[in-house]
Amino acid sequence: MPTASPNIAATDWNDFADFAGTLCNKARPIALGYFRTALPVDSKADESPVTIADRTIEAEMRAMIEAHFPSHGIYGEEFGIKNGDEHIWVLDPIDGTKSFITGFPLFGTLVSLAVDGAPRIGVIDIPATGERWIGTPGETRLAGAKQRTNDCRALDAARLYTTSPDGFTTSNTAGALAAMSARVAMRRFGGDCYIYGLLASGYCDLVLEVGLQPYDFMALVPVIEGAGGVITDWCGEPLGFESQGRVIAAATPDLHADAIDFLRIWI
Amino acid sequence: MPTASPNIAATDWNDFADFAGTLCNKARPIALGYFRTALPVDSKADESPVTIADRTIEAEMRAMIEAHFPSHGIYGEEFGIKNGDEHIWVLDPIDGTKSFITGFPLFGTLVSLAVDGAPRIGVIDIPATGERWIGTPGETRLAGAKQRTNDCRALDAARLYTTSPDGFTTSNTAGALAAMSARVAMRRFGGDCYIYGLLASGYCDLVLEVGLQPYDFMALVPVIEGAGGVITDWCGEPLGFESQGRVIAAATPDLHADAIDFLRIWI
Repeated sequence: MPTASPNIAATDWNDFADFAGTLCNKARPIALGYFRTALPVDSKADESPVTIADRTIEAEMRAMIEAHFPSHGIYGEEFGIKNGDEHIWVLDPIDGTKSFITGFPLFGTLVSLAVDGAPRIGVIDIPATGERWIGTPGETRLAGAKQRTNDCRALDAARLYTTSPDGFTTSNTAGALAAMSARVAMRRFGGDCYIYGLLASGYCDLVLEVGLQPYDFMALVPVIEGAGGVITDWCGEPLGFESQGRVIAAATPDLHADAIDFLRIWI
Repeated sequence: MPTASPNIAATDWNDFADFAGTLCNKARPIALGYFRTALPVDSKADESPVTIADRTIEAEMRAMIEAHFPSHGIYGEEFGIKNGDEHIWVLDPIDGTKSFITGFPLFGTLVSLAVDGAPRIGVIDIPATGERWIGTPGETRLAGAKQRTNDCRALDAARLYTTSPDGFTTSNTAGALAAMSARVAMRRFGGDCYIYGLLASGYCDLVLEVGLQPYDFMALVPVIEGAGGVITDWCGEPLGFESQGRVIAAATPDLHADAIDFLRIWI
């Protein structure tokens, strides 16, 4: 990745955010068109509905990016990497595959613009509910309204979410989830990208996950940070293309510091 | 419970189902009025938003039942039992409390009419998505369309849901969940009553739960059965007011038989 720091005016961020929204406008009807169709799903087939939906959406989004920003790079779940300049669009056409193929409506489309390796724009779009969290440097909006994380500052009071315990397969990661679950006020499962939207809007306080790929987490960063939260890897390092996919997101810097301290023995 | 078998014409079931829908029409705006408000939530307070919402909804529904069917009994989560004739309305004003207080939109209102102890009408209403599954003897409808469970007949191919592993606290129940999860094609968490709607509509195949109360499960029975599925306790016995709250719901009788056989060593 180039290391020169970005020098982009606020108006440009808004332009990029608008364009990310346009990508999601294209994706949404395609996702909904495949959602809850063609059952029973054979999840092992090469052309299961989720694969078709994934590929169709990512192909459309890539074509739009190439038309509008031909010099930009692309990092997509389905079609991989297109090299370009310091701008890289990171795409997850359908985050929450298991939700999608079981009719569970909280799957999402994720779009991020990374500049010099750092995610600056992030969009979490939820086609089935019509919700769309848009994170830009300095603010996160949902339906036009600025979002703010909750003021939770201590693990004991935190409402913790994680998509599933199934990814916590090593003794260290399983131990971390069990210990943190025992410590917090409430632990809940389910949701993929949706739970990061809930955190940005103040409805939960902490998300702990493992095994995420850059296309899973890059879009989450501007959404969480723009709402006042903190999101890093389990060591407290910023998330980027080289991160190992262990993600901790917290409503406040104090809560995040507590969580990082708590995770230290499990790394 | 009285044991005389019910003798009610089909038109009466439809009338009762319509009335159950009217109860949900009353409940829905109240639930949405309290949803995602008054944060941060103190879940230990006597008058947390979820409690206020629960009580307000159940009080309104009870008043409507008492006005329309003064001889009927009522079994509600918040205000307990009102004795009456062989008809008992079973009410859960907000199923999915943890979802409700963390802004997760898949909580529901459950209404059932039991006659001589057997649930005959069941409604799963999801205020935040506007979905409403209505089960009557012989059919289940969603937005007017008849629903049908998936044709899955074997555990190996089943998509299994349960709300959370946290209720499976004994070695037998935890063992059952772990063993069944290892056996099925896919295991997913999250959803409370919503996942029974997904099963009725063919999007998942199996739900395994523990610790449910009659107000949690009575409404689910007509919804699952009306769509062609089977729902019982873990011994294969019909669910009723005396059931211990271990629930297994399956898309087909064959799958249900397999599941009951599988659970035998864990009871």
